[in-house]
Amino acid sequence: MHFSVRMRAAQGGAHENGGRHISGAERLIPRELLLETTQAMVQRALEHSRGNADFIRLTVEAVAPAACLAIPLLPWHSLQSASVANSRHLALQALGQAGVSEEAAAKGLLALRNLPDSLRGAMILSAATGERLDATETRGVRVSRMDLDAQSDALPWLRQQGLDGEHPREAMVLAAKVAAAPGMVAELCWSDDPEYTTGYVASPRHGYVRIPCLKEKNSSNGGRAFFVSPDADLAALQHFLEEQPVLVQNRPQKGQAS
Amino acid sequence: MHFSVRMRAAQGGAHENGGRHISGAERLIPRELLLETTQAMVQRALEHSRGNADFIRLTVEAVAPAACLAIPLLPWHSLQSASVANSRHLALQALGQAGVSEEAAAKGLLALRNLPDSLRGAMILSAATGERLDATETRGVRVSRMDLDAQSDALPWLRQQGLDGEHPREAMVLAAKVAAAPGMVAELCWSDDPEYTTGYVASPRHGYVRIPCLKEKNSSNGGRAFFVSPDADLAALQHFLEEQPVLVQNRPQKGQAS
Repeated sequence: MHFSVRMRAAQGGAHENGGRHISGAERLIPRELLLETTQAMVQRALEHSRGNADFIRLTVEAVAPAACLAIPLLPWHSLQSASVANSRHLALQALGQAGVSEEAAAKGLLALRNLPDSLRGAMILSAATGERLDATETRGVRVSRMDLDAQSDALPWLRQQGLDGEHPREAMVLAAKVAAAPGMVAELCWSDDPEYTTGYVASPRHGYVRIPCLKEKNSSNGGRAFFVSPDADLAALQHFLEEQPVLVQNRPQKGQAS
Repeated sequence: MHFSVRMRAAQGGAHENGGRHISGAERLIPRELLLETTQAMVQRALEHSRGNADFIRLTVEAVAPAACLAIPLLPWHSLQSASVANSRHLALQALGQAGVSEEAAAKGLLALRNLPDSLRGAMILSAATGERLDATETRGVRVSRMDLDAQSDALPWLRQQGLDGEHPREAMVLAAKVAAAPGMVAELCWSDDPEYTTGYVASPRHGYVRIPCLKEKNSSNGGRAFFVSPDADLAALQHFLEEQPVLVQNRPQKGQAS
């Protein structure tokens, strides 16, 4: 049996009572990792660089291994950039190559930039028009129930690529699940962690494109925008992102970035 | 800062989705105990004698020490009994001495006995008529946000009395909070843990009366009934039980059972 472990932490009360989102985490693990994982999540919530949480919610749910979908990590490459302005220009280019219209990419970037604080989840936008399609408002759609497949060589592979730090590992797992969602065109993300400024554009077509300097250092503004095909089945998409258990495996061949 | 830590575990999905209640726990602790406490709760949920949980919900909330009410442990004594029938007769007597009418006591005992499984919380009954007053149905009213005051000698005092095992300690803390609730007349409880057959009647008037053999061994049927004054303000009572943080201290003089 596997266990989905989900954590969300806020400051000033629970999220649903107006608390400020501090931190979240998603794991899908065998039982023998349950105790250390829950403990690490509580510790992470208490010591997050975004502030001290005064509300932590942890949910543990058994998931039958047969219910888990196996998907591969995305191929990836890194861009180089030394300024936020240039990095955002590169992000717009990468979104365009992934199939997002110029207008939608610009609107998505602006929407992320203008977030008053971070969302717990992601905004879902039309890849054609940039119009927001989901109804989750300040909550966002939370991608859940996914992890590296501990039975595979995914973690050693990430380690070999220098992507086994907490932020890149979690991002590679989440981006793999998002790119596998029905109707997904591309994802744009930078972290709400004030100390972590690297972001990415990910897509089924072009894989995971790491972009340094995608926000200013010490900014707590961060989040995710998912650009989806205008004819995507939004209910099916949201169900996949939130509910479908996914175990992410290493690439069949390593480093095959497009 | 203190932290309220609450755990509930179920089998067959979350409680709110029809899962069977397996285990719950309530602590109110200083920050340095947070990690070990959350870990112990997850472990307890996974290894409970009522069965294996497949859903665990853990909530951690900061509580300002100034918001905590200090109350004393109840004076206590033990009765002797070797049969469930006799023990239940003693429980009815104790309820009567505490101010519960004969009719209400009999109805409350029957209601507990006839529970198809255990409630997560307690039934609130009229101490005059035995009529159920709360509207929580199969959920019950959950007594929350209480613990022994680690700054007091409450735990050494319990240890001295031989009441520092998990079940008696938790029961003494909960019964102290319940007896301090506005309008409370008496509580009747036996555990849903199939291996633990000792129960109790507790009341502001006569303290905590331990009664062995209050249910058959290996029965998972258990729960709590709170008998309240017919003119009790039910909303205030429920708010106190669920929301008011309470730290329970040792008795000013030890062993002063009434």
